[in-house]
Amino acid sequence: MVSSYEILRKEPAETVRRYIRSGGYASHTAGLGKDLLQANLAIMPEEFALDFMRFCQRNPKPCPLIGVSDTGNPLMFTLGHHIDIRTDVPAYNIYRNGLLSSTVADLTSLWSDTLVAFAIGCSFTFEHALIEAGIDLWHISNNTTVPMFRTSLNTVPAGCFQGPMVVSMRMIPDQRVSKASEISARYPLAHGSPVHIGDPALIGIDDINAPDWGDPVPIQAGHTPVFWACGVTPQAVIQDAALPICITHKPGHMLITDIPNDAENPIIATTTM
Amino acid sequence: MVSSYEILRKEPAETVRRYIRSGGYASHTAGLGKDLLQANLAIMPEEFALDFMRFCQRNPKPCPLIGVSDTGNPLMFTLGHHIDIRTDVPAYNIYRNGLLSSTVADLTSLWSDTLVAFAIGCSFTFEHALIEAGIDLWHISNNTTVPMFRTSLNTVPAGCFQGPMVVSMRMIPDQRVSKASEISARYPLAHGSPVHIGDPALIGIDDINAPDWGDPVPIQAGHTPVFWACGVTPQAVIQDAALPICITHKPGHMLITDIPNDAENPIIATTTM
Repeated sequence: MVSSYEILRKEPAETVRRYIRSGGYASHTAGLGKDLLQANLAIMPEEFALDFMRFCQRNPKPCPLIGVSDTGNPLMFTLGHHIDIRTDVPAYNIYRNGLLSSTVADLTSLWSDTLVAFAIGCSFTFEHALIEAGIDLWHISNNTTVPMFRTSLNTVPAGCFQGPMVVSMRMIPDQRVSKASEISARYPLAHGSPVHIGDPALIGIDDINAPDWGDPVPIQAGHTPVFWACGVTPQAVIQDAALPICITHKPGHMLITDIPNDAENPIIATTTM
Repeated sequence: MVSSYEILRKEPAETVRRYIRSGGYASHTAGLGKDLLQANLAIMPEEFALDFMRFCQRNPKPCPLIGVSDTGNPLMFTLGHHIDIRTDVPAYNIYRNGLLSSTVADLTSLWSDTLVAFAIGCSFTFEHALIEAGIDLWHISNNTTVPMFRTSLNTVPAGCFQGPMVVSMRMIPDQRVSKASEISARYPLAHGSPVHIGDPALIGIDDINAPDWGDPVPIQAGHTPVFWACGVTPQAVIQDAALPICITHKPGHMLITDIPNDAENPIIATTTM
């Protein structure tokens, strides 16, 4: 059972996850599961989970927490039907003591009763809304990766989790900056409004042409650099904490949930007794 | 150093907390710390904290989490300057094995290295906004306690925490129901939009004149009952879980934070390195 990106673009989230689960699709998820929240993933032993959850609560812009598994339970039942976090993400990075040890397509053999999975909102949600509003995003039009930078903005620490905030940058036409800010503010589960607008030096970015992750974008006349908190922040913070084991999604290869992008809360509706 | 409600109404939050801390004010906090978030309080041993935090994440309407202490640290530094959770709430209820054991004004002798404090948004925030919009709230005009009801709506469980959602009810003039809903939706940190509008029987409330907590309000012609998720939900859930020890605020005697009611996030601004 193998499918292509073009076919899966038209399929509902549950079908896309079924293909991913069976090994029939292993590529990036941008544009799939239309209008549904996608999520960054972090899996770690329970002994670190309370501090990591505090870290997310204290840093809601880089780490908008949208779901947490029960310890040892791979089913993320608040985010959708039959979401099995061991198999439903196209590719996973395994870190041991802070270093990338391998990239795998399935966690079934690695899963254990002590693990807790965290799903964190991602920028696909507000990027989609910006494009719908007619705001061109250079990295998407040119099929590159958004540029990301370490900043001089500190996160609020919790336990072993601490470090600088990572931001993503998009060049926005000057007269649309206010609109772009207003649109993204509607999506607090996907990083919300920008953390900085304008001069990169003010948040400790020395060279806008040399991102720490992703690809540079050309400086365009009549455009302003706009910076959003980025889901790479928790990944960087987790790596620095050098946990004995930690699992994340491979960048761009996200978890597709059943939660609408514009949901008030990222929870499948509560049931009546 | 003793003060009265009328004097403290004009004082900033830090001054109010100083009076509370020194034992100079021990009454309710409605109307104090104008335009600032007030919070419900739950303190419990660390072994239950991860499950309780998951419970809040899964039930954001009854349990909008606005702050979590480090284990054993009584200073809730993300919510304001010098907030000491052992002393800065006017009155505390101590529960042992789910039963109210005592009500005290100070937790200093009870505090231990194993405790974690949770602050949860409260309805004062949106009630204030409704009144500002000219929507009269009967329980406030008549100086009674808002009526609260157990419902047939289930919370999403986490570990030992589970049970029905508790709601508060306000009679809203029919032509203002939509506006009241829209206004409260702006405050996701204070229970957000209503969970139900209209027929109480649909959410398992048999007798609107017999609330489980608080005082009944008269049924008024041309008014609709509107139900919001209520901060009594986590208190009821915690009592049912019968933790060996758990501490909450005495109802109405809330923590006053330094966070503006309309803040995007309940975090004192991150610092630049």
